Amino acid sequence: MREVAVIGAGMTRFGELWDLSFREIGIEAGFQALVDAKLSSHQLNAFYLGNMASGSLLEQEHIAPLVIDYAGLAGHHVGAIRVEAGGASGAVALHQGYLAVASGAYDYVVVGGAEKLTDVPDFTANRISGSTADQEWESVFGATLPGLWALVARRHMHDYGTTREQLAHVPVQAHAMGAKNPNAHFRNKITLETVLGAGPVAEPLGVFDCAPLSDGAAAVVLGPMDEAKKHQEIPIRIAASQVACDTMALQHRRELTTLEATVTAARQAFALAHRAPADVQVAEIDDSYSIAALVALEDLGFAEKGKSGALFAQGAFAPGARTVVNPSGGLKAQGRPFGAVGVAQAVEVVRQLRGQSGERQVPGARLGLTHNIGGTGATAVVHLFERVN
Amino acid sequence: MREVAVIGAGMTRFGELWDLSFREIGIEAGFQALVDAKLSSHQLNAFYLGNMASGSLLEQEHIAPLVIDYAGLAGHHVGAIRVEAGGASGAVALHQGYLAVASGAYDYVVVGGAEKLTDVPDFTANRISGSTADQEWESVFGATLPGLWALVARRHMHDYGTTREQLAHVPVQAHAMGAKNPNAHFRNKITLETVLGAGPVAEPLGVFDCAPLSDGAAAVVLGPMDEAKKHQEIPIRIAASQVACDTMALQHRRELTTLEATVTAARQAFALAHRAPADVQVAEIDDSYSIAALVALEDLGFAEKGKSGALFAQGAFAPGARTVVNPSGGLKAQGRPFGAVGVAQAVEVVRQLRGQSGERQVPGARLGLTHNIGGTGATAVVHLFERVN
Repeated sequence: MREVAVIGAGMTRFGELWDLSFREIGIEAGFQALVDAKLSSHQLNAFYLGNMASGSLLEQEHIAPLVIDYAGLAGHHVGAIRVEAGGASGAVALHQGYLAVASGAYDYVVVGGAEKLTDVPDFTANRISGSTADQEWESVFGATLPGLWALVARRHMHDYGTTREQLAHVPVQAHAMGAKNPNAHFRNKITLETVLGAGPVAEPLGVFDCAPLSDGAAAVVLGPMDEAKKHQEIPIRIAASQVACDTMALQHRRELTTLEATVTAARQAFALAHRAPADVQVAEIDDSYSIAALVALEDLGFAEKGKSGALFAQGAFAPGARTVVNPSGGLKAQGRPFGAVGVAQAVEVVRQLRGQSGERQVPGARLGLTHNIGGTGATAVVHLFERVN
Repeated sequence: MREVAVIGAGMTRFGELWDLSFREIGIEAGFQALVDAKLSSHQLNAFYLGNMASGSLLEQEHIAPLVIDYAGLAGHHVGAIRVEAGGASGAVALHQGYLAVASGAYDYVVVGGAEKLTDVPDFTANRISGSTADQEWESVFGATLPGLWALVARRHMHDYGTTREQLAHVPVQAHAMGAKNPNAHFRNKITLETVLGAGPVAEPLGVFDCAPLSDGAAAVVLGPMDEAKKHQEIPIRIAASQVACDTMALQHRRELTTLEATVTAARQAFALAHRAPADVQVAEIDDSYSIAALVALEDLGFAEKGKSGALFAQGAFAPGARTVVNPSGGLKAQGRPFGAVGVAQAVEVVRQLRGQSGERQVPGARLGLTHNIGGTGATAVVHLFERVN
């Protein structure tokens, strides 16, 4: 397999982008990434698009060629392929792009992620996001993603003594970081009191424990490592790209508080890259719900089982820590346009490793991790990115 | 890139499978393919699933891990990834499975295609299938796939003198072949009079010019060619796998009667495999509409531009011809469960090349082609399969 580098990165701001259509945001992110890679669109061989539910949301399937068409690239011999894995669609698209370049079949590939969630009412978007859980065992009985994550939170509190206050530290740190991110959906700092005093969504989770519904798109350009210097002064090597899966329904898991798919993907990724969690200076992890972030920290190997809540509250993943988590603001503050999330995480890590992150730069970061899940963890994807010069 | 072989093939019957759920048909096809490949599920590294619209049809996204879960394989370190490209979803999934094995990242991969269309009313399924055309320029104004293909048919008749009777020969041959296929949705022979006398859908296309809405699933197992003999007496080599795309909306094409995406994918596939159309003994092509089959024969290089109608009516693609087209009965008679089509075409060709097709066997076939399109041809996929022993 060839070594694969990220040679370009771009993204739109995330938020309620009522003035922009799905095709417009997809194209904006892609062009930013192509310009960043100094790549002519004629050199492009394929386009992978992560998207969760454009069929249900926009009555438009078949969207990968749509974006290529509206980018003016139809007829340029670019294969266009959509990949879907619920909220992990973006990261899974990145995995496919990685394999496509690693195989030698394609030299230059754009991987995009895009979602337009605010063109439908919130309850519709929430119902559709619930379709990433098990329809026959969960959704049909009214279970929603926040409801399912609330079960995980209750169990984590029961088994490990995790507290409501510890959970609340997750969105507080997210908003503090989002305040430094010009692309973030939310740029306001919040306090523990705000989180604890907010209305409940599914107890113990309140409004601020749940990431928002956002519009947005992100894109990276991948190419062979040995050509990368032609395009990018600081190419970032993809050191590992791993996808794993688990049961769709929570109740079929061995335990509620461990996502086996995350454990598997992370273990394989670290083994392949000959690295350990302690080597990671910057990580973008899936904090779609505050409890999801705590569970992820344990499953990824950044915290001992049951200890993530206490560690997080102590600032063990804040700026200055050995591993800084979610400098972008994460899904909570940067935003959560489902299919775009996994690609946006890659954009953030790539910019961090290049040293381009301004106010929220993690100094000297050389190894970065992204972690993206679908549903309640039936899909988990882990990527490792390395700065090599 | 490693050489890739198909070492297993399986499919459900196609039709109105009211007694079977989506997850059940997915699993049945997959297990058939695994048994055929003499592959233990523990050896499986990844699962690619082609599916057009389970979100809109079943309120269930995130379906690749769902099928793996219900197959009892969650936690077996199998990555599960859904790919969508409208009616070409199955063939695009096959392309991804091919790249995954070719890259060396995965050794053994199941590629499945599945769709359940008869659990919703026909008008709903038709509306959803229309979402593979351009929503903003076509579908929103009421254009449906049959309506768009009717424009292509009118233009082909105008430019080349193709007749209504010539179009009608396509479904007549399809039903004649379907009658010999135990998995086919329709196994009744029909006559020219039946086709010409049927009610119009979008003139000049009538009921019998349009492939049905079907349920069904198909699967193939891919592995490295140099290991293939351990699993399959007659492994079939994938000689080429090409995806190309074009504008979403018909009106943005250079001409209505040529699908540039098919032309590009076919040209690249034949060049890569160092073969020509005349070398192909068996082809499964996209006959979702009778006119689509005629256009495809020209775009793939099996007929000169404008001559496909006359040639088809003369039996130039019927059993006994140099290239036999759609021995399975095609989308018209075997059936059209969108996301399953591209994989079912591969299953048919693989069985033909192995000499296992019974009554409908194309004698001595050694090179086979599959051709699958999404929407009105914004995506086209061409595969070449070769028997090597």
